[in-house]
Amino acid sequence: MYGTIRIERNEQGKAIPAAEQSLGFGRYFTDHMLLVDYEEGKGWHDPRIVPYAPLSLDPAAMVFHYGQAVFEGLKAYHCVDTGEVRIFRPDQNAKRLNRSNERLQMPLLDEDFFVNAIQALVRLDAKWVPQKKGASLYIRPFVIATEAGLGVRSSSRYLFVVILSPVEAYYDEGLKPINILVENHYARAVQGGIGDAKAAGNYAASLKAQALAKEKGCAQVLWLDAIEKAHLEEVGSMNVFFRIGREVITPSLSGSILAGITRDSIIQLLCDWGVPVTERKISIAEIVQAYEEGTLEEAFGTGTAAVVSPIGSLLWGEKQMDIQGGGIGELTQKLYDAVTGIQSGSLPDSRGWMVSC
Amino acid sequence: MYGTIRIERNEQGKAIPAAEQSLGFGRYFTDHMLLVDYEEGKGWHDPRIVPYAPLSLDPAAMVFHYGQAVFEGLKAYHCVDTGEVRIFRPDQNAKRLNRSNERLQMPLLDEDFFVNAIQALVRLDAKWVPQKKGASLYIRPFVIATEAGLGVRSSSRYLFVVILSPVEAYYDEGLKPINILVENHYARAVQGGIGDAKAAGNYAASLKAQALAKEKGCAQVLWLDAIEKAHLEEVGSMNVFFRIGREVITPSLSGSILAGITRDSIIQLLCDWGVPVTERKISIAEIVQAYEEGTLEEAFGTGTAAVVSPIGSLLWGEKQMDIQGGGIGELTQKLYDAVTGIQSGSLPDSRGWMVSC
Ligand SMILES: Cc1ncc(COP(=O)(O)O)c(C=O)c1O
Ligand SMILES: Cc1ncc(COP(=O)(O)O)c(C=O)c1O
Repeated sequence: MYGTIRIERNEQGKAIPAAEQSLGFGRYFTDHMLLVDYEEGKGWHDPRIVPYAPLSLDPAAMVFHYGQAVFEGLKAYHCVDTGEVRIFRPDQNAKRLNRSNERLQMPLLDEDFFVNAIQALVRLDAKWVPQKKGASLYIRPFVIATEAGLGVRSSSRYLFVVILSPVEAYYDEGLKPINILVENHYARAVQGGIGDAKAAGNYAASLKAQALAKEKGCAQVLWLDAIEKAHLEEVGSMNVFFRIGREVITPSLSGSILAGITRDSIIQLLCDWGVPVTERKISIAEIVQAYEEGTLEEAFGTGTAAVVSPIGSLLWGEKQMDIQGGGIGELTQKLYDAVTGIQSGSLPDSRGWMVSC
Repeated sequence: MYGTIRIERNEQGKAIPAAEQSLGFGRYFTDHMLLVDYEEGKGWHDPRIVPYAPLSLDPAAMVFHYGQAVFEGLKAYHCVDTGEVRIFRPDQNAKRLNRSNERLQMPLLDEDFFVNAIQALVRLDAKWVPQKKGASLYIRPFVIATEAGLGVRSSSRYLFVVILSPVEAYYDEGLKPINILVENHYARAVQGGIGDAKAAGNYAASLKAQALAKEKGCAQVLWLDAIEKAHLEEVGSMNVFFRIGREVITPSLSGSILAGITRDSIIQLLCDWGVPVTERKISIAEIVQAYEEGTLEEAFGTGTAAVVSPIGSLLWGEKQMDIQGGGIGELTQKLYDAVTGIQSGSLPDSRGWMVSC
C-alpha cells in the first residue's frame, strides 16, 4: 500500500525489565518504533521501523499549537495455549483511528496497513511481550500534525507513530473495586464536539476534574452529559455499565463518548450469554432510584487498560452509594474472566478477536 | 526569578524577507527562540535564548497523547513615532496564559518573567520586525507537556517556548468584510469545558466546521452555545461585536469563549468614547429580529491577527443577512483606526498599552 516497511534494527537494544520488576503502565518502551510520513499530494509514504528515539519537530509544528493529535490503545498478549503473541481486535482500533482522523480533518490510514504494520513491529520486539499473568504489551499508535506554520487550519503534513510498552496487569492480585465521583460541574465533551474521537485534547480537558476527584478519595470521574447534566456518559478512560435488577445498561453512543472496543466486546459476550443488555440513555436520577430501591446490583467500567473494573461506590454530591457492599459483582467477575481468558489464550476465541503476529 | 536568561547567538542568521516579499502569517520564523524547562520539584529553570531549531521530544512525550498544550498570540510593532519596537499589552497575555495553564493542570509562569523574556527575545531579533505599514512581528508563546509516559495524568515536565514570525497586515489594502456562517451543528466548547482556555485542543475541534463553512463561501464560523444552540459565542479566532441601533453588544464571558485582549481593548475604547457597550447574552434570534427591523447596523470580529474584521454577511441556515450592504460600518472603521493607530505609534497611547523592548 504505502510501500514495504523498511526496517532499521536497533543493534544495541535496551535491557528488558526482569520478570520480577514492576512494569507499571507506559513507563518502559521497546527497542523500535514505527514511523510513516504524510504529505499533501503525496499521501502516506516511507513506512519504516527504526530504533526508538526522540522525534525532531519544528517548534511551529502544528500539533503544538492547534492540537491535531489522535491516538489508539490496544494490547498484545503472550498466549498460554500455543505460546504465540496475539493482538486483541486491532482492526477495530484501525477503524476508530480513522473515525478520529476524519473528525479532526486528518488524513485516513489504510486499515489493513495499520494492522500489518503493528504486527510487523510487535514481531520485531516480541521478546518484550511480558509472560507474567495478566501483563501485556501495550501498543500506542498515534498521528500528529507536523507542518511548521501558524494560522488555524489543517496541517498539510502528519506523522503516524507506533510505540510499544510492556505493562503490568492493572489488577495484580484480583479485581479491586474503585470509588467514582459523578462530576456535575466540569464537562469533558458535548454533542457536536469531539468527545467521540480519541483526540489528545479531550484528555487535557479532563485532568482538572480528575485531580479534584482524587482529593475526594475517588479514582475516577463519571461524566454527565454537558447539556442537561443528567445522563451518564463514561468514566475517565472507560465506558460504564450498570446492572439494575436483571437488565444490564450502558449509555448509548450519543456522540460525546468514545465507542470503546472493550465495551463492544462485553456487549457481544452478554448477548451470547443471553443476558439482557441495553444501550440507552441512563440518568443519574435512575441510578439513585435503583440504589434506593435496592436494585442497583453491579456497576463496572470497561477499557483496554483495566479490561473490566468494578465500581465499589458512586459519590454524587453528598450522596455516597455503595454497590455490592463495595465488593465485586458476580457478572463483573465473570466478564473479566471471560475477556482476559480469551486474551491470554486460556479460553477459546470463538469470535476471531485475537490476531497472531 | 528563574535565573538570568542565557543567550546563545545564532551566528549564521537567516535571510530576512525583503520588504516587497509577501510575508503571509506564521510562515517565516526569526533567528532565535526562547526555551524554559519545568520539572516537578524544581520549578521553571534554565531560561535560554538559542538559535531557532527543531525540538527533540520523546515519542511518549505527553503533549502528543493527552493534549496538554496552551499558547498565546501577541504582536510587536515598529512604531512610527520614535522608531522604537513596542509590544501590545503583553501583561494581558501573561495573565491569560496562566489562566489556561491553571485550567489544564499545567504549572503557572511568573508573569513579569513572561514579559521580560519576550522583550529580551524581540530585542535580539529586532531587525526582523517589519517596517511596512500594518505589518508586525507575531509572538507565539506556548507551553507543552514533555514527560515521556503513557497513562492519563498531568505531566511532571513542561517546556515553555517563544517563537517569532514577521507577518503581513491582515488587510493589506484597507478593511475587507467577510462572510460568516452561523454554525448550528458542530460545537467548539461548552460550559464546564476548556473553551475559555487558549488550549491547542480547542482549535483541532473547530477545523471540521471551519472546512464546511469554506465550502459554503464563508471565511469563518460563528459558534452558538453548545447547550441551547441559541446564543452567540465567538468567531473562529475572534470575539464578536454587534451594533444594534445605538447599542454595541458583545457576548459576555460565559466560560466557553476566550477572553480576547482585543475585545477588552475595544470595550475600553468604546467606554472612553461614551458609546454604550454591553457584555451580555445575545441570541441569534435577536440578531435575526434586528436584521428584519433594519436595526442591525454593524458587526465585526476582534482578534490579534486581524485586529478588527468587519462582518459583511451572516449565513444562518438558508437565511443570508447582509450587514451595511456588505460594506464597512463607521464604528468598525473608527475602532480599527484607533487600535492600529495606537499599535503603530501614530496615535498617543494614553492607556499604557504599548510596552517598549
Ligand atoms: C475516553 C475513553 N472512553 C472509553 C475508553 C475505552 O475504550 P477501549 O475499550 O477501546 O479501550 C477509553 C480508552 O481507550 C477512553 O479513553
Ligand atoms: C478562540 C479565540 N477567540 C478570540 C480570540 C481573540 O483574542 P485576542 O484578541 O486576545 O487575540 C482568539 C485569538 O487569539 C481566539 O483564538
